[in-house]
Amino acid sequence: MNNSGSQDSKCRIIVDAMGGDYAPQNTVIGAIQALEQDEGFDLFLVGKKAEILQIINSNKLSFNEDNIIHAGEVIEMGDSPTSSLKAKPDSSIVVGARMVREKKADAFVSAGNTGAMMAASTIIMGRIPGVGRPTIGAEFPNVNGVCCVYDVGAGKDAKPSHLFEYGVMGSIYAKEMGRKNNPSIGLLSMGEEEGKGNEVVEEAAKIFKRSNLNFIGNVEGRDILTKNVDIIICDGFVGNILLKFGESVPKLLKHLLKQTAEKSFFDKIKIGLSKESLRKSLKSLDYQEHGGVPLLGVNGISIIGHGSSTPKAIANMVLRANEMHKKNLVNKIENSIKQYSLITER
Amino acid sequence: MNNSGSQDSKCRIIVDAMGGDYAPQNTVIGAIQALEQDEGFDLFLVGKKAEILQIINSNKLSFNEDNIIHAGEVIEMGDSPTSSLKAKPDSSIVVGARMVREKKADAFVSAGNTGAMMAASTIIMGRIPGVGRPTIGAEFPNVNGVCCVYDVGAGKDAKPSHLFEYGVMGSIYAKEMGRKNNPSIGLLSMGEEEGKGNEVVEEAAKIFKRSNLNFIGNVEGRDILTKNVDIIICDGFVGNILLKFGESVPKLLKHLLKQTAEKSFFDKIKIGLSKESLRKSLKSLDYQEHGGVPLLGVNGISIIGHGSSTPKAIANMVLRANEMHKKNLVNKIENSIKQYSLITER
Repeated sequence: MNNSGSQDSKCRIIVDAMGGDYAPQNTVIGAIQALEQDEGFDLFLVGKKAEILQIINSNKLSFNEDNIIHAGEVIEMGDSPTSSLKAKPDSSIVVGARMVREKKADAFVSAGNTGAMMAASTIIMGRIPGVGRPTIGAEFPNVNGVCCVYDVGAGKDAKPSHLFEYGVMGSIYAKEMGRKNNPSIGLLSMGEEEGKGNEVVEEAAKIFKRSNLNFIGNVEGRDILTKNVDIIICDGFVGNILLKFGESVPKLLKHLLKQTAEKSFFDKIKIGLSKESLRKSLKSLDYQEHGGVPLLGVNGISIIGHGSSTPKAIANMVLRANEMHKKNLVNKIENSIKQYSLITER
Repeated sequence: MNNSGSQDSKCRIIVDAMGGDYAPQNTVIGAIQALEQDEGFDLFLVGKKAEILQIINSNKLSFNEDNIIHAGEVIEMGDSPTSSLKAKPDSSIVVGARMVREKKADAFVSAGNTGAMMAASTIIMGRIPGVGRPTIGAEFPNVNGVCCVYDVGAGKDAKPSHLFEYGVMGSIYAKEMGRKNNPSIGLLSMGEEEGKGNEVVEEAAKIFKRSNLNFIGNVEGRDILTKNVDIIICDGFVGNILLKFGESVPKLLKHLLKQTAEKSFFDKIKIGLSKESLRKSLKSLDYQEHGGVPLLGVNGISIIGHGSSTPKAIANMVLRANEMHKKNLVNKIENSIKQYSLITER
């Protein structure tokens, strides 16, 4: 592999056909849709071969049967992430991750059990040399566009150096994937002034300041939705709580609107009329719309999708994996982490 | 003071006349409004005497001039909390807190600099014996009514025993103030299963389980707005970020609605028509509506209000202080913390 620039070899992408609430229906259809949009990669489907073939045939899709990798077990959405890796060694998630580890594939895409997919990617694919903790980001809607928060649950009890790594990896991802050339990075804290972080955040700020990343200092909870900042860094424990809190806002809004409508006939009419406009406006709050997100820092491309992923979401995940491969993202992260190792170890 | 039951002596309440964005106008008017609603307490106003008198006179209010405590300095909203206590010893916040410490008053109410008010209450009034960390809660709207989150920023880097104390104090407050007799308490985590907390949360869960509090285990970020749970406990760092994130949601919604309206004439009309109904529905998301919140665990009653508090909010804060005094809340917290000390120290 070349260590910089872009990747010329065709990307070999495995899709977990069994992962997600509507698998293998949505996964098989979505993955093959991606292939129809861009033939520049090799697609493999991993899972129960008979079920996969049935979806292909009943939907009259065309797919090379040799590219179906049979895996007889399925890690269900409710299974315990780490113990299921051992308990189900022939599951689609374990088999898919193993193929990346054995260099038989470059990328693995799954909308299955998120915890199991994170564990399989981290344990089986392994981490990029120099990376202490892989991280997963989430895009929040923001009055200026989008704000990407790392980490939203790949880890917890992160050390200062881990928070810095999240910033390095998030920054490379934003730049290479054409989001922003020199993305601004803030550390999530209780206030903007110095000293408003917790102990870990205060230490992480010192590392960020020594780097040449576009670090803007502390940011607050309100800044995720309202400030002009590209990337916000926090411990996975904080990010996961925030992500799930944010995801639940539409449910509360629906409840509050219903309550208002019940109190007055005129409110009911007015809210009823504007329902569709409201739905349009709130669409960006629906995190399921965004498709999958990469687990950065593992030694291979790992894209994790929402359980309820549509075929379109699956297709987008596959195309994203291909783009990450073309941009040589794994090697770029390795080089950048190596370059910064002196700063974090000081 | 009697150690249990309710308090018979009249509550002496000091209001920081200089605290808040619309002080002394809103503070003086609001405090005197509270007195008009309930004469069962003694009211004192602390601040610049001439300015206070001017508001009283220009609004033709009636107030005993002897109950105005002159304080020549003001801690501004932008002042550094801890250093301003030393730099401005004659400020209304310092003078008010000192009166509680010297037992010249029972309660202190301020809508001024939140950090300075928390620091003054903690440092000058002192903590209730046995309390490691005072805590401040925030009420979040919830599909089942209201969910109170402790801590939202009185502390950070809390130890497991501090999280447990937050639960004890929050529980007493909910019960004594007539909110809920045996409030359910959850620990904010990344998932509902055991092991989904961070290190501190996992340890705190063990203490909660040994207590007779109504502990329901781990809860997730989405549960704040959607689960039937009365109290959610977290580190002040997490709670503060969540609170500010939540406060910023209406701003994002407004932006998203505007965006939709700009794209289509019909959406514009429909959103315009429903504007007032939407405003009504979102009212409970506006944390300024809720008035002040108590800092629990300090040796006296300390109520902290939003900088933009209206006279009505100030009046509600005063009446709440009076109720806390009547219910003998400070002593009840002391007794309960003493009772639980064996559990936390084990």
